[in-house]
Amino acid sequence: MSKRPLILVTNDDGINAPGIRALIQVIKEIGDIVVVAPDSAQSGMGHAITINSTLHLDKISNDSGKLQEYSCSGTPADCVKLAINEILERRPDLCVSGINHGSNSSINVIYSGTMSAAVEAGIEGIPAIGFSLLDYNYNADFEASKKYVKIITENALKNGIPKDVVLNVNIPRLIEKEIKGIKICRQARANWVEEFDKRKTPQGKDYYWLTGKFKNLDNGEDTDEWALENGYVSIVPVQFDLTAHHCIQNLNSWNLND
Amino acid sequence: MSKRPLILVTNDDGINAPGIRALIQVIKEIGDIVVVAPDSAQSGMGHAITINSTLHLDKISNDSGKLQEYSCSGTPADCVKLAINEILERRPDLCVSGINHGSNSSINVIYSGTMSAAVEAGIEGIPAIGFSLLDYNYNADFEASKKYVKIITENALKNGIPKDVVLNVNIPRLIEKEIKGIKICRQARANWVEEFDKRKTPQGKDYYWLTGKFKNLDNGEDTDEWALENGYVSIVPVQFDLTAHHCIQNLNSWNLND
Repeated sequence: MSKRPLILVTNDDGINAPGIRALIQVIKEIGDIVVVAPDSAQSGMGHAITINSTLHLDKISNDSGKLQEYSCSGTPADCVKLAINEILERRPDLCVSGINHGSNSSINVIYSGTMSAAVEAGIEGIPAIGFSLLDYNYNADFEASKKYVKIITENALKNGIPKDVVLNVNIPRLIEKEIKGIKICRQARANWVEEFDKRKTPQGKDYYWLTGKFKNLDNGEDTDEWALENGYVSIVPVQFDLTAHHCIQNLNSWNLND
Repeated sequence: MSKRPLILVTNDDGINAPGIRALIQVIKEIGDIVVVAPDSAQSGMGHAITINSTLHLDKISNDSGKLQEYSCSGTPADCVKLAINEILERRPDLCVSGINHGSNSSINVIYSGTMSAAVEAGIEGIPAIGFSLLDYNYNADFEASKKYVKIITENALKNGIPKDVVLNVNIPRLIEKEIKGIKICRQARANWVEEFDKRKTPQGKDYYWLTGKFKNLDNGEDTDEWALENGYVSIVPVQFDLTAHHCIQNLNSWNLND
């Protein structure tokens, strides 16, 4: 690539989270950056968009055109929509989201704000990658992650991400020399077993906190869960055509039009 | 089926919306019902779950065990999780979500709270269907929809919905005699072209409302958009394994581990 690529950076933990700061450190060596990220944490927001409320945008820094940052009152998907339509002067060459504090592997992709930003960019035709580290701590160590963000981002810019697909990258919570490499994977079949923490208000009324345990139902060695448990960075190509094409024939045998 | 099925009913427009009332009217003829639905409209919430806030649940009616209703402070996905874990005495035989006031065809499935409830049930292993009418009006006419809700729900109970798949049903805004029948479809390729409505606060600061135009990029006659435009009810089988399996080989050619 002769000129520096333009890269949109976002996340769901908020613009001040250490994860996005680590991501910006790597990406600013690769391209010109515009950061548009939520002004506060948006974890678990899935692919929410703001349609019944207003959106606010604040320019918070400007490093001589090479690094512009905006904070946004909306969700990660809102940030991408606003960036493309109201902030960026041209279509970005890539959108990167993260580095999320916590896993977005397997079924977590469905609940993930980090991935919803990447998917939103993908729907708009922009190559996109979501990065997540399997460490929920605010002060997680992103050093090893940075190496893999760089390798994967450079490969994505060089090779191109397949059309209508975004990449879901998860990084194990290991120091650099313990990570064995990168594996292309499929999403493991899994769910969460909920255990609502039921409490009483001071007035005696029940209320609930959502808690739960992740349950992997899939031992396939081609899954992201297997890769992560065995010391690899996982990349799952994620599509937003949700059609279960293999079921169409079966459903056509139903007696729907008599 | 010898005994009446137990059916969980939810939506994203809120428990008092006419769409869920129409759905309940049909479903109570088919099975015993537990309704757990948001206490207010949740449109555009995607697959959001409430992890940083508390959840409240209110029992609002009890029709002698055949129809129980609860309103919930959370998202559609929260409603399903709470219903399964805290309310229902046994696993439901089916979960139905809707009838949504407005389309969830094509790429709208990604942003849909109606479909997030169905997908959440599907992840938990419960057969599930989301129903949407292509009419955003609060006072939309659900008469024709009821006929198709009945046909599709009865077929789903009789034939079983394929594993790891939920059904996304959209109904055209037509009177009953104008609807030509039901088609099994794939999700049309489409996106939204955003047009943010930029305004100024009384203090002179910019803010935005999200608006936009739906853009169908796919003329395939096997798509949900084609079916709906041509007077058919569309059913798209939707999966929550988002892996783009067809891209794994391509990505394995990247130079990631040298």
